[in-house]
Amino acid sequence: MSYKIGVLLSGNGVYDGAEIHESVFTLLAIDENRGEAVCMAPDIDQHHVVNHLTGEEMDEKRNVMVEAARIARGAVSDLAEVKADELDALVIPGGFGAAKNLTKWAFSGPDGEINSDVKRIITEVAKAKKPIVGLCMGPTVIAKALEDAGLNEHLTVGTTEEASPYEISAISAGMEKTGAVAEMRTVKEIAVDKENRIITAPCYMMEASITEIRENIKQAIDQLFEMLESE
Amino acid sequence: MSYKIGVLLSGNGVYDGAEIHESVFTLLAIDENRGEAVCMAPDIDQHHVVNHLTGEEMDEKRNVMVEAARIARGAVSDLAEVKADELDALVIPGGFGAAKNLTKWAFSGPDGEINSDVKRIITEVAKAKKPIVGLCMGPTVIAKALEDAGLNEHLTVGTTEEASPYEISAISAGMEKTGAVAEMRTVKEIAVDKENRIITAPCYMMEASITEIRENIKQAIDQLFEMLESE
Repeated sequence: MSYKIGVLLSGNGVYDGAEIHESVFTLLAIDENRGEAVCMAPDIDQHHVVNHLTGEEMDEKRNVMVEAARIARGAVSDLAEVKADELDALVIPGGFGAAKNLTKWAFSGPDGEINSDVKRIITEVAKAKKPIVGLCMGPTVIAKALEDAGLNEHLTVGTTEEASPYEISAISAGMEKTGAVAEMRTVKEIAVDKENRIITAPCYMMEASITEIRENIKQAIDQLFEMLESE
Repeated sequence: MSYKIGVLLSGNGVYDGAEIHESVFTLLAIDENRGEAVCMAPDIDQHHVVNHLTGEEMDEKRNVMVEAARIARGAVSDLAEVKADELDALVIPGGFGAAKNLTKWAFSGPDGEINSDVKRIITEVAKAKKPIVGLCMGPTVIAKALEDAGLNEHLTVGTTEEASPYEISAISAGMEKTGAVAEMRTVKEIAVDKENRIITAPCYMMEASITEIRENIKQAIDQLFEMLESE
């Protein structure tokens, strides 16, 4: 029997949805470990639609679950209907969708709201002591979801020691405001919180090649299966 | 100096654009071989927009180049402005976009029209004896582009001997109508036309896991670099 790994998608495209490379490499690494990916997304409108060629907002509406189905080749469940007891673990890839559609971190940092179903599934999985993986901006969603849980979870969104297109120090400080402990990691490393069973990896939070992203995610997902198999 | 590999995208999503997994694994394998991917797409409306959750057509318009930029994280050139002498090779991933936006094969088989810039770039690259890779439905675009060239190129879109969601025998017959020779290959194999320097791989034309798709594409792109380096 293979492990069922929830993959929480936030759309389809780095600037307004789930980061595509990170999402695909997540699905690949789960399959390489003989796990079964269960893709899910909230059935809500995206915060907005960004033209990925120009970076400008488009006068359009798109639905997070419908767009996520492009990455999943159709097979996406409505997050509202997924319960933690159907899953052995949960993975949250990055992309601005994590911080625009799942939370509002992109606009209000840790003070922004979190989607209620996103909070529910992460809380349920954490309470059941099932592993959670956060990639890129994914860890901010975990931090926000668990802010009342008092877990002092250790998470990384990268390191201030190497080049990043983002404000790693501000995002790390935001995570600490929720009660998390921010760890510094390069794109060649992951952070493993053994006590809380949370694995995080910087991915495209750092300046990195697509090969480095693939390897960073493989490292995180291999670690996840090691955690599952050592139970 | 690294090789510049053109990647011709046809949108973003298997049912109306470029197949996302195949496109991402193409970019990965090019980077793993220390090549530089040059993503390009025609600046045209998609044939239509498909809701990937339901399979139904949506009352929307989307632009092929703008949507392709989601896969490329912004970096997509307008195909109309790309010349073969800027490239060392060309790769065409699959997805219905290849057969709906680049050609009309999905509706009219080999009798459907081909986009004039798609025909131009493939013809220029073939004339310059630079390698071409076609993945999944990509070979049908190559066949259509080269129908007047008299190259008798050997191409595969899969095999009738194993399970496929598509009509491999009809698509193979369509390619032969253009003057190509259809080869039968499983998802574990590629077809290499050494004389014409064309490499093709079945990918999602066959029933296959995401890991098999990754490996089939790695095989094709590794073969491409072997061809480039043996010049």
